[in-house]
Amino acid sequence: MTSAPRRFAVGLDFGTNSVRALVVDVADGSEVGAHVGEYSSGDAGVLLNPRDPNLARQNPADYIEGLYSSVRRAIAAAKRKRGFGIERVIGIGVDTTGSTPIPVDRDGVPLALHAEFRRDLAAQAWLWKDHTAHAEAAEITAKAAGHPDRYLAKCGGVYSSEWYWSKILHCKRSAPKVFAAAYSWVELADFVPAFLTGKTDPHTLARGICAAGHKAMYHDGWGGLPSEPFLASLDPDLVAIRRRYAAPAVPADRKAGGLSEDVARKVGLPAGVPVAVGAFDAHMGAVGAGIKPGTLVKIIGTSTCDMMVAPMEEPLPDIPGLCGIVPGSVVPGMYGLEAGQSAVGDIFNWFASQLAPQPYTAKGDPHTNLSRAAEKIRPGQSGLLALDWNNGNRTVLVDPRLTGLLVGQTLSTSAPEVYRALVEATAFGALTIINRLEEYGVAVKDVVNCGGIAEKNPFVMQIYADVCGRPMKISHSPQTCALGAAIFGAVAGGAYRSVQSAQRKMVKAHRKVYRPRKAATAVYAELYQLYKQLHDTFGTHDHAQALAHVMKSLIAIRDRTRSE
Amino acid sequence: MTSAPRRFAVGLDFGTNSVRALVVDVADGSEVGAHVGEYSSGDAGVLLNPRDPNLARQNPADYIEGLYSSVRRAIAAAKRKRGFGIERVIGIGVDTTGSTPIPVDRDGVPLALHAEFRRDLAAQAWLWKDHTAHAEAAEITAKAAGHPDRYLAKCGGVYSSEWYWSKILHCKRSAPKVFAAAYSWVELADFVPAFLTGKTDPHTLARGICAAGHKAMYHDGWGGLPSEPFLASLDPDLVAIRRRYAAPAVPADRKAGGLSEDVARKVGLPAGVPVAVGAFDAHMGAVGAGIKPGTLVKIIGTSTCDMMVAPMEEPLPDIPGLCGIVPGSVVPGMYGLEAGQSAVGDIFNWFASQLAPQPYTAKGDPHTNLSRAAEKIRPGQSGLLALDWNNGNRTVLVDPRLTGLLVGQTLSTSAPEVYRALVEATAFGALTIINRLEEYGVAVKDVVNCGGIAEKNPFVMQIYADVCGRPMKISHSPQTCALGAAIFGAVAGGAYRSVQSAQRKMVKAHRKVYRPRKAATAVYAELYQLYKQLHDTFGTHDHAQALAHVMKSLIAIRDRTRSE
Repeated sequence: MTSAPRRFAVGLDFGTNSVRALVVDVADGSEVGAHVGEYSSGDAGVLLNPRDPNLARQNPADYIEGLYSSVRRAIAAAKRKRGFGIERVIGIGVDTTGSTPIPVDRDGVPLALHAEFRRDLAAQAWLWKDHTAHAEAAEITAKAAGHPDRYLAKCGGVYSSEWYWSKILHCKRSAPKVFAAAYSWVELADFVPAFLTGKTDPHTLARGICAAGHKAMYHDGWGGLPSEPFLASLDPDLVAIRRRYAAPAVPADRKAGGLSEDVARKVGLPAGVPVAVGAFDAHMGAVGAGIKPGTLVKIIGTSTCDMMVAPMEEPLPDIPGLCGIVPGSVVPGMYGLEAGQSAVGDIFNWFASQLAPQPYTAKGDPHTNLSRAAEKIRPGQSGLLALDWNNGNRTVLVDPRLTGLLVGQTLSTSAPEVYRALVEATAFGALTIINRLEEYGVAVKDVVNCGGIAEKNPFVMQIYADVCGRPMKISHSPQTCALGAAIFGAVAGGAYRSVQSAQRKMVKAHRKVYRPRKAATAVYAELYQLYKQLHDTFGTHDHAQALAHVMKSLIAIRDRTRSE
Repeated sequence: MTSAPRRFAVGLDFGTNSVRALVVDVADGSEVGAHVGEYSSGDAGVLLNPRDPNLARQNPADYIEGLYSSVRRAIAAAKRKRGFGIERVIGIGVDTTGSTPIPVDRDGVPLALHAEFRRDLAAQAWLWKDHTAHAEAAEITAKAAGHPDRYLAKCGGVYSSEWYWSKILHCKRSAPKVFAAAYSWVELADFVPAFLTGKTDPHTLARGICAAGHKAMYHDGWGGLPSEPFLASLDPDLVAIRRRYAAPAVPADRKAGGLSEDVARKVGLPAGVPVAVGAFDAHMGAVGAGIKPGTLVKIIGTSTCDMMVAPMEEPLPDIPGLCGIVPGSVVPGMYGLEAGQSAVGDIFNWFASQLAPQPYTAKGDPHTNLSRAAEKIRPGQSGLLALDWNNGNRTVLVDPRLTGLLVGQTLSTSAPEVYRALVEATAFGALTIINRLEEYGVAVKDVVNCGGIAEKNPFVMQIYADVCGRPMKISHSPQTCALGAAIFGAVAGGAYRSVQSAQRKMVKAHRKVYRPRKAATAVYAELYQLYKQLHDTFGTHDHAQALAHVMKSLIAIRDRTRSE
């Protein structure tokens, strides 16, 4: 008995600390080869500035090096499997972090690859979690708020310091030499496909709708990027950036081009293999986790990304606080909705590294030790309540200058109690996002979780189920982002006519379900009312509530005294 | 050249974990002998109940044992000094913790000394920091609030769970057998002089005005203890307690009696030595620190006691939130004003033991390590702000069911930053007390600090000076309580005609001054405005502010889930 020859797709997932290459069989999504390439620069791939905790950059050379080594080795691993052959690779898909814009020269080469700028932090990739541009974000928000085109209507009403234009404007002001040398700014999600295909001319390289729509205020409703007069009102030099940006932006099931001779040789694949347009890791991860209307996909790691899709046939209102509602950004042909929490695992890591006492850190993994003790505490027992804002709040408040809060401490409050309160706080944050979606008519029928914490932390996931009062499913693949990228590679390579039909074959059902426990859910419903009050009082500017300024005033005093 | 024979007084200071005996020269207060006797029962002298964190009791046998051994050894030490002789001991003064009522039998013998009650926690001394009676305190507050005699006007408007009647009423309800067996309840400050003199009949043993006025709602204005109808409205059985209570209550410069034969033999002193009426440790400590009108004396240890005196010639308004305003309670002939913070050192100890990571605890004293690192952080730099309520708030809110709060955390907040924020929070609490006194016309011209933290922690005291914007003096004697007790012994023994004249000879000027630093004071003035907002919003019931219930709701949920 003979069968049709197998076909394969490669998914490339550029994360914060490493790049993963995954080779899958397009028939069923099964993995035949994989490799993770770590970034060699900075602190686990992140360039930091000890004098500015807001700064986070990456060396573009790490992307290129990581790309070469991870694909080469993933292919080498695949070759050891029966039925694989490099001639059977039909497509490559790419996902990356974002918004991670890179200043490039006239040829689309990152400035940081030039000797002149090699050590200049402003010339590197501005990593998604860089918050140096908070003043510019506030300025853009203020200017856009009153604009007749309502540029912020699709991204929750607030423009973020993490996003494209904030970072470019901050570069102009803080590093004018780099700004002047940058011919264009290219999102990492667009840079990688351009680099793979050799089509790096800034004027023509494919700009993905995902990065454009969620981070650069791109929308067909107002003719693509914000208008030239609007950008000029921020800074006249931004107009040139707009003119060197290919429109229209395209969804990720389209082909960006074929693999270039040069890259093909370096990674051991045939030249010409179709490369799909890039998109953000979370969005492709959502596809790899089986996103469809009614299914919320949460990627839970250091932070979270929460995604839904909605059919474009029905009207969808603007939803305050969402990072974005972009047609075609997740699944082509549907609205892509993105929300997120700016810190989840990062908060647990912070506690474990800064405040966990010796008994929990001396032996074994502090998180395991703390979780084991925290698991024994019943909901409500500690009397503690926290706000999950150590890194600000993305959805629904869209305010990076919010900070953490812990209340309820006594003289016997223990480290596992605080740890549990922090986990609960992130779960309350997750529930706040679900509630916001439902308040605006987007029913959440199902929650599928992926990412490191969903994979590895039953303690956290059980609390999420209890707090949200919903089953928490865990996605089947532990590599949903790379799988999602491979799905887009398969579609771009012609194996499927649509992302949905590819999902039906390549995404398997969830692997595990955490179910809410009635008693816990009842207590958490009470605690959530208190969380919501703290959330609204410290986070919103409702005049009946007097404390919205406290965190901001503390930050102002902190910044001033630090610079004195 | 010959000089007048020297004369000596003994001060006995019954603290939370030990009793200190101090022998001083009445001419100048200099120490000639001292000994500390530890209590042998429970956890460093405190009997705990793991199932009820509010419970704190003491074994009365520890007081007696500690009294014998400490005096015997202090006298033995004094005997090695030239000029000392036991016949030259002219008086004994006693201070103790309080309110620490002890249930006694018809002869004034503690019930706990009877075999039947030896292991019964309710039959022991109810230590000052026992909070089991919070429901009864609330009931007394509610009943007294509407009473025409205004019983709470002199103790800040709120009756505390730490105080005499709350504890007795709670015993009636929770341990009726002990209540029924108790003929009377005697404050430790009254029990010790009674025991020393053998005058233990509950009907006649001297009740000090200090304990009576500050803890038992005793005031000449309404005829001593609260009226029989009022007590009966709480519980008819309280009436008998009132009838077995000697009136009028007396100040501590009066003689309670002479040292009994029995005790004299056991401690190695002549029988008949005058013993002064007892008072609370903090109050005699204030005398030992040189309290006088305009001078605030702060005893800073696990908690604080803040005391002032005011001349009785001028009218003094009731001051909301003060633990008490009692004529003659500190210095006979003056108003004694008492305020306090329910946790200071206890908060630092909590943090060091529960949340300080390994680098600060592995080697050396955690407090020293944390202070060294925290000292390098400038005011405002951490962006943190805390409320010092881990053990509730005594002055000015008088609410044991308040809890701690920390706000401003980021992902890089460090343990020394939190430690510093907690120290600053206690300083803000200290300033709130000073402000309250001054708002009601009691000018604070001078602050003298004593107690363990004032003695040993320059880091904390500098922050207090900076936050309060005032010089913080450190009292000359490190044993102000025992010295104060000795001063009362000297006055009762006839060496001086008044406490003030004894102070002039026996109390030396302060030993050290921490001066406020301008730049720090300016930043703290800003931070204090924010502290005050958190304080008022979480701590008061002003209807414009919506969060006063948050801590209470968390406690209610905690208590319920703990008991489920």
